[in-house]
Amino acid sequence: MAARHAAAEPPPTPLATPRAVRWGDLEDAASGLERPLLRQRGANTTSQMAVVGANVCPIESLDYEIVENDVYKQDWRSRGKIQVFHYQVMKWVLALLVGSIVGLVGFFNNIAVENIAGYKLLLTSNLMRQDRNLEAFLLYMACNVVLAASAAAICAYFAPAAAGSGIPEVKSYLNGVDAHSILAPSTLFVKIIGSIFGVSAGFVLGKEGPMVHTGACIAALLGQGGSRKYGLTWSWLRYFKNDLDRRDLITCGAAAGVTAAFRAPVGGVLFALEEATSWWRSALLWRTFSTTAVALMVLKSMIEYCRSGNCGLFGEGGLIMFDVSSRVTSYTAVDIIAVIILGVLGGLFGALFNHLLDRVLRRYGRINEKGAPYKILLTAFISIITSCCSFGLSSLSPCIPCPRDLPAGRCPTIGRSGNFKKFWCPAGQYNALASLFLNTNDDAIRNLFSGGTDSEFNVSTLLVFYTAIYSLALITYGVAVPSGLFIPVILSGATFGRLLGKVFGSANGLDTGLFALLGAASFLGGTMRMTVSVCVILLELTNDLLLLPLIMLVLLIAKTVADIFNKGVYDQIVRMKGLPFLEVHGDACMRSLVAIDVVSGPVITLSSVERVGAVVSTLRRTGHNGFPVIEDEPFAPAPELCGLVLRSHLLVLLQGRMFTRTRVKTSATEVFRKLKPFDFAKVGSAGKPLEVDDLGLTDEEMEMYVDLHPITNRSPYTVLENMSLVKAAVLFRDLGLRHMCVVPRTTGRPPVLGILTRHDFMPQYIRGLFQNVLRE
Amino acid sequence: MAARHAAAEPPPTPLATPRAVRWGDLEDAASGLERPLLRQRGANTTSQMAVVGANVCPIESLDYEIVENDVYKQDWRSRGKIQVFHYQVMKWVLALLVGSIVGLVGFFNNIAVENIAGYKLLLTSNLMRQDRNLEAFLLYMACNVVLAASAAAICAYFAPAAAGSGIPEVKSYLNGVDAHSILAPSTLFVKIIGSIFGVSAGFVLGKEGPMVHTGACIAALLGQGGSRKYGLTWSWLRYFKNDLDRRDLITCGAAAGVTAAFRAPVGGVLFALEEATSWWRSALLWRTFSTTAVALMVLKSMIEYCRSGNCGLFGEGGLIMFDVSSRVTSYTAVDIIAVIILGVLGGLFGALFNHLLDRVLRRYGRINEKGAPYKILLTAFISIITSCCSFGLSSLSPCIPCPRDLPAGRCPTIGRSGNFKKFWCPAGQYNALASLFLNTNDDAIRNLFSGGTDSEFNVSTLLVFYTAIYSLALITYGVAVPSGLFIPVILSGATFGRLLGKVFGSANGLDTGLFALLGAASFLGGTMRMTVSVCVILLELTNDLLLLPLIMLVLLIAKTVADIFNKGVYDQIVRMKGLPFLEVHGDACMRSLVAIDVVSGPVITLSSVERVGAVVSTLRRTGHNGFPVIEDEPFAPAPELCGLVLRSHLLVLLQGRMFTRTRVKTSATEVFRKLKPFDFAKVGSAGKPLEVDDLGLTDEEMEMYVDLHPITNRSPYTVLENMSLVKAAVLFRDLGLRHMCVVPRTTGRPPVLGILTRHDFMPQYIRGLFQNVLRE
Repeated sequence: MAARHAAAEPPPTPLATPRAVRWGDLEDAASGLERPLLRQRGANTTSQMAVVGANVCPIESLDYEIVENDVYKQDWRSRGKIQVFHYQVMKWVLALLVGSIVGLVGFFNNIAVENIAGYKLLLTSNLMRQDRNLEAFLLYMACNVVLAASAAAICAYFAPAAAGSGIPEVKSYLNGVDAHSILAPSTLFVKIIGSIFGVSAGFVLGKEGPMVHTGACIAALLGQGGSRKYGLTWSWLRYFKNDLDRRDLITCGAAAGVTAAFRAPVGGVLFALEEATSWWRSALLWRTFSTTAVALMVLKSMIEYCRSGNCGLFGEGGLIMFDVSSRVTSYTAVDIIAVIILGVLGGLFGALFNHLLDRVLRRYGRINEKGAPYKILLTAFISIITSCCSFGLSSLSPCIPCPRDLPAGRCPTIGRSGNFKKFWCPAGQYNALASLFLNTNDDAIRNLFSGGTDSEFNVSTLLVFYTAIYSLALITYGVAVPSGLFIPVILSGATFGRLLGKVFGSANGLDTGLFALLGAASFLGGTMRMTVSVCVILLELTNDLLLLPLIMLVLLIAKTVADIFNKGVYDQIVRMKGLPFLEVHGDACMRSLVAIDVVSGPVITLSSVERVGAVVSTLRRTGHNGFPVIEDEPFAPAPELCGLVLRSHLLVLLQGRMFTRTRVKTSATEVFRKLKPFDFAKVGSAGKPLEVDDLGLTDEEMEMYVDLHPITNRSPYTVLENMSLVKAAVLFRDLGLRHMCVVPRTTGRPPVLGILTRHDFMPQYIRGLFQNVLRE
Repeated sequence: MAARHAAAEPPPTPLATPRAVRWGDLEDAASGLERPLLRQRGANTTSQMAVVGANVCPIESLDYEIVENDVYKQDWRSRGKIQVFHYQVMKWVLALLVGSIVGLVGFFNNIAVENIAGYKLLLTSNLMRQDRNLEAFLLYMACNVVLAASAAAICAYFAPAAAGSGIPEVKSYLNGVDAHSILAPSTLFVKIIGSIFGVSAGFVLGKEGPMVHTGACIAALLGQGGSRKYGLTWSWLRYFKNDLDRRDLITCGAAAGVTAAFRAPVGGVLFALEEATSWWRSALLWRTFSTTAVALMVLKSMIEYCRSGNCGLFGEGGLIMFDVSSRVTSYTAVDIIAVIILGVLGGLFGALFNHLLDRVLRRYGRINEKGAPYKILLTAFISIITSCCSFGLSSLSPCIPCPRDLPAGRCPTIGRSGNFKKFWCPAGQYNALASLFLNTNDDAIRNLFSGGTDSEFNVSTLLVFYTAIYSLALITYGVAVPSGLFIPVILSGATFGRLLGKVFGSANGLDTGLFALLGAASFLGGTMRMTVSVCVILLELTNDLLLLPLIMLVLLIAKTVADIFNKGVYDQIVRMKGLPFLEVHGDACMRSLVAIDVVSGPVITLSSVERVGAVVSTLRRTGHNGFPVIEDEPFAPAPELCGLVLRSHLLVLLQGRMFTRTRVKTSATEVFRKLKPFDFAKVGSAGKPLEVDDLGLTDEEMEMYVDLHPITNRSPYTVLENMSLVKAAVLFRDLGLRHMCVVPRTTGRPPVLGILTRHDFMPQYIRGLFQNVLRE
């Protein structure tokens, strides 16, 4: 009954030089293959590591399948109405709790940014008021660099996974890819603080992407059922110790994050649906919507509280909510043509942005790999460039006389926010570039969107600002601080839209503020390729449903144009980071293959009542997470598939030491007396998973037998060996599996031929295996 | 080579007294079972028939699985870039075409209703202006009865499937249940005309549900790839001749229907997502949204055209768009309590509505069964009751002096629409009940929602109107005309909300018009149990996103309260009609069963190269739609599962007459020369499916052999016999299968043990099989 042969999921141990890090060479993997169509028996080593945040990190798959073993069935039978009620209540309580906490964090985030950035701008403008311009510039730059370096430092030393937007990581998690650090408490902490520092440092980056990641982290922490380490366990929470419930909660968290960032509850739900999750149920729709509604209500009541002036420099600027009153009810043909041109150009610039960003990120990846000091230096360097751009370009810009018809005090303004910035212009004049650069990004967007200000920014101002922002956005995203892409894209899109509005000039009847909004939509469509969610978020930001047709038109065109060139920016980052993301549609290379073609390595099976020593040596020898269990004599006349057993469950069973001297089944009552269902629950991010070496088994025990029946999943999903790979992939993805058994079609063969995991469906792996054939 | 044994999908032939019609006896099915845990071998006869619209009709399952046979593979290989481009372009063109046509139909629908109902009301009020009140009443009733009877007549004689809302049928279709008549052209025609007549007849019913069905019908017609019967075939359309693409298009159509009904594009998408479909992909999100946007744009431009007065009596009333200006920015605790009470009561009344509606529908079902004349009589009878209620109750209501502060001409009004109806009151006074009853339903809702009119309706008026509408809505829905539930529910909810607003009186700061809106939300939540879509539809109707928190709160409470008592109204109707709807979660009765337990009947298999006579006799003898194909000697050393073949494909193959005298495989080139992939495409609703008797095979041909390999789906989804039934159901539903093969776990058995179809997963069937055990 020693171990037999076949592959389960390959080891999650860190490799010396993980494949995924050497960017771009995935296509060349296994290029030395000689016998392309012969079945490959080497282990699948692709994609066991990925870049999470800015560091390389081992990854694991998540399991959304119900492990129907005896322990589960016993647990299910023992659940009464009270337990079901607990579960239902807790599901809702947790979702609403996630909503309120995310709302509070979103508010805290805003208030902190407004106060830090506001204080910085206030100091600067006070110096400028005294004509100490050089000092003002130096102070401004010093503030920025210090903030940027602190953000980079905590990010590099405490939680490298917190770098970047976080949306690609959350998206991958919801697709079933887990890296321990993605949703850890340290990541949450650094994400919040780092995002505040980063945004306050005047970088061209947003806090919206990090808010989504923050929401997901909060949901993951709440959903992991307390912490045994800190003695925080509560029996009501124990039903959530599984990947499925945690996934649902994290979906709610991501949606709440969008809501907290944009005050857009419907947009948040649609974002979760369109971009974040890979699986969706309509029951989840309602739970997600309730979460976002709670987040919104919390946010609103806090803002209400701040209206009375209790929140320092926090103004209306904190949460972007633009007032683009609809001055349009009907459009002329010229307007439509202008909008179409805007859509096409937005698509082109969006695709170009993705292309360039990919290049920049690959280069930054090499710098960031060298260690934390390099990350901090890079961040500080980009901060200096950004500061020089903001201040330098503004100082080169000429002063413009204020428009006559504005009420006194509205032009020029000086201080931390406002349109028509004075900068160092004489009284009665303003500096247009400074009105955009020396503001928080939110305020700059508000200035661009503002209607009835057609003459405020002239073409050259917009052109300079557009070029600067587009370039700065490209070089900023990759630095090791939490950084969102929404705001840079909206900012450059709005500038571009306004620019185009100016160029079309009086030929069309649309306001330039409206053009800025449409420009933002076209750039969002061109880079992110999200459609419905972007549309609804923009509608909720502007609170005007009458703009819908124009926004949709521009989004449709921008997305269609950009899709010709490359994929959406998040998909591109997911791929570049080496995360094994399962796509909806199988790759073309799968078309002519069947399931058995991609099975790798010898299949390693266990007997239903196995020698302890054999189990331990199998666990030590392989890194697989699932093993097929074979029922054979004396329990069955011929070998047959009993089910699938998970590594984590095996370890718990061995720890329970229910061994027998002879090869017999253990009685069920004894099993359920000793083993409680929640011993098998998944550990949270604070807990350390069991290892074989922790068990301390004696030599005597090694010679005894252990009955695997109670923990064997009796109903693993199976495919016949000649099942087409495309259809097997559909089954694997749609059901969210981690392991899938390949069983023989003909008799007289072993009862299981291999195990397919997520990595076996990765196009780069398959292309590597069958390179010569597929190139034909 | 002769047929072997096992069950495929049971026959779709009409049974003498179909089970599904004898309401309520499903629980008692197979009550005579003696050996509960022995495997049942009788054919599964449940759910082969269902009530579609108002008539009983045979139903079939749809197949969303890719039939990966040689013909498909050859077809796929032969598709070049041009074909893929054709497909992509057509997918979008069809979606946008569906949007524009549905938009146009929606507009036509409105204009017709407004004109017919307007003319009717104009005639009546002209008579009343001359004090000929009795004549007015008689004319009013006569108009109503004639319109109602015509609607019922076309519905009963031409397309019984057009009766009712249509949403349950569309929902079932998208779940994979097809009845030939659900989406037929005649149904479309009758749905449009019948809905116009029904709404114009003053019934308490809406045109919104029928609009959804209309949208689905239009999509189905456009998507069926032309019509061979009328010579309307176009090669670009041939890729859509399958269930999968048709389903996607119908989803778009349903969403466009909601958009055309409510002018709510985002609400339409969410409705399709939340209520209509059972499967969803994010790619579809965008296509659906584009469809609804096009529908909206068409609608808007038509309304713009009508503004100039070209559309007869069509006013702003046609498409409901309410102006509930937000006079609230913050709420007090009293307001929140009032809203909570409204939510609870809405939930209770909603659940009660569902319960009573179920009773009424069962009773009406028996009347409608008796034949078309009974249907027409019933409709006319309800129409008389409705007319008497409207006119009679109004005439009993006292006249109220007009409010002083209204501008002249706004009170009292006389004519086809408007607030403060004069009825037969003296000058300067109005009749409150007539302002609600003698209007179209849309106008009545607008009157209820109108803000700043707190004193217009007093408590007794609202109480009488509420009682009347609630009862009329219950007795109206089941009559054999196209009838939606949205409007009756909104109407009674709005009345109830306003009533409650009056009761709370000055204690709260919310406007009674706003209360009416919240009341509508609570009733919608209580009956339909839709949440996000209702919320967004209401937001889009009122164009005020600031109402979001209150609407969500009320919906959440109403749904939670109502869910304690029963299911949503559409789910309830689906169940009552006997449609085999696959739920997301398996029934509790499946928990302890495995796949083989529910396999019914002997499995009937075919050999991979089979005698023509055997195939024909199998086709004649059974009604199954899928047969496992067994590969045996000389093609395989031992019998093994080759795949699954569909009845429709077998018939096409036999028609091709590629027979051989000996038992050999046909060469691939010869097969592909004779058989074109599109010969196997699914026929549209106009085409008649092939029958065995159409083939006219000679006795000599019957003795020859036919090679089934080219049409055998080589990768059917399979489960092992001991797979838990719950997990098998998850696989079956999530992948949208029609047939699933049960294969043995142990060797030395036949290669396939049975076939599971949709009907084998129906709780009533399983409960019937294992009644005694499950009752324990």
